[in-house]
Amino acid sequence: MKRVKLLIAYDGTNYCGWQKQINGITVEEVINKTLSELLNENIEVIGASRTDSGVHALANVAVFDTETKIPAEKISFALNQRLPEDITIQGSEEVALDFHPRYCNSTKTYEYKILNRRFDMPINRLYTHFVYMPLDVDKMRQASQYIVGEHDFKSFCSARSQVSDTVRTVYSLEISKNNEDIITFRISGNGFLYNMVRIIVGTLIKVGLSVYPPEHVKEIIDAKDRNVAGPKAPSRGLTLIGIDYEE
Amino acid sequence: MKRVKLLIAYDGTNYCGWQKQINGITVEEVINKTLSELLNENIEVIGASRTDSGVHALANVAVFDTETKIPAEKISFALNQRLPEDITIQGSEEVALDFHPRYCNSTKTYEYKILNRRFDMPINRLYTHFVYMPLDVDKMRQASQYIVGEHDFKSFCSARSQVSDTVRTVYSLEISKNNEDIITFRISGNGFLYNMVRIIVGTLIKVGLSVYPPEHVKEIIDAKDRNVAGPKAPSRGLTLIGIDYEE
Repeated sequence: MKRVKLLIAYDGTNYCGWQKQINGITVEEVINKTLSELLNENIEVIGASRTDSGVHALANVAVFDTETKIPAEKISFALNQRLPEDITIQGSEEVALDFHPRYCNSTKTYEYKILNRRFDMPINRLYTHFVYMPLDVDKMRQASQYIVGEHDFKSFCSARSQVSDTVRTVYSLEISKNNEDIITFRISGNGFLYNMVRIIVGTLIKVGLSVYPPEHVKEIIDAKDRNVAGPKAPSRGLTLIGIDYEE
Repeated sequence: MKRVKLLIAYDGTNYCGWQKQINGITVEEVINKTLSELLNENIEVIGASRTDSGVHALANVAVFDTETKIPAEKISFALNQRLPEDITIQGSEEVALDFHPRYCNSTKTYEYKILNRRFDMPINRLYTHFVYMPLDVDKMRQASQYIVGEHDFKSFCSARSQVSDTVRTVYSLEISKNNEDIITFRISGNGFLYNMVRIIVGTLIKVGLSVYPPEHVKEIIDAKDRNVAGPKAPSRGLTLIGIDYEE
């Protein structure tokens, strides 16, 4: 038996997120079904990040155990021939049998993209959140410094979550704007609570619109109350960039 | 009566191109129907560029005449509320009654995007052409110098075209590669023949793959024969960036 690690990219637009559920088709389900057919075994992958409905990924991580004789590196190519075009495997390799994508320490990086201009742009609409009112990038940058570091992020966690420990460390949060009016929030951390990135961005949007002064973000963190933070930004703007595991 | 100019952006994925036809829904048809309902007049726009099925646009140009009292600048906002999300008006303004988007002199700019890496990326798939084999950007740049200038581009014009004068001027053709493995061909000219940009890119891909040496592109131009150029590259990689009219 061997354990195989997959790097999985997907366009989340047409999926009800990563994790198997009753309401609709999920990325995990498609991967399980395709792998099981390919290897002629009953495969259930363990995913690293349970991305929400509509969220995209460049390299989510999942592992599975298999008896197959196909070399681990070749599985990506074989899978891609059978997967729909909105899911592709970016690589596959054998890993130690005790490697677990959620329990091993890692750094996760997400990007959130906002299109900030007068009119929405059709070719960006599936991967950016359109905001008509001008956003002050400098103010959002000032506010972002309160987010970086180890904090109790309870104010930035959807009430539906059942996690008890809401302390997380954000290693970096960079905000840039390109010449196509796209503002990118790039955030790395040792883990993120349910909807945390989207609530951080929703809160920074309020700062960018001058609804809150930048310093108010510190008070929001200190309050440890979901009701005082901004709304969660829409899922289409969010992409899981990658997950780095410590050696 | 006044003549109104529209700047129109669209995601071409779900349309059979710009121009009205029997086989399927087109961008022109959707614009005509939406404008006619909004203004309560029978409107038929005249478009500048009849983009092909699957080709995208950031700012195609169209004009129409109307008796409406709505100021020209407001029409964009009113239209956007009624249009599907894969078509948006980027601006509207009144122009002279003799302004014609195809007969007035203009510079058209297109971009063609290729994703050149080992695996296709789902969130890019609708707007880039995926090429697995590594492309030599330097060789393609060398070849592109033969394209720039005034030439008879008969070799780069689909046989279906009924144009008799196949001389056009390409003002510039720039090729760049970003750190996300996307190669962008940006081409400007005073006009393009049917499928010309896609055949130029299809030919440059053959140079990038070292099937042709860069100098062979000069021979292809001189041959004035569609059969000696490369195949046309797929439509999804092509976007009309904009059209500048001479004053």
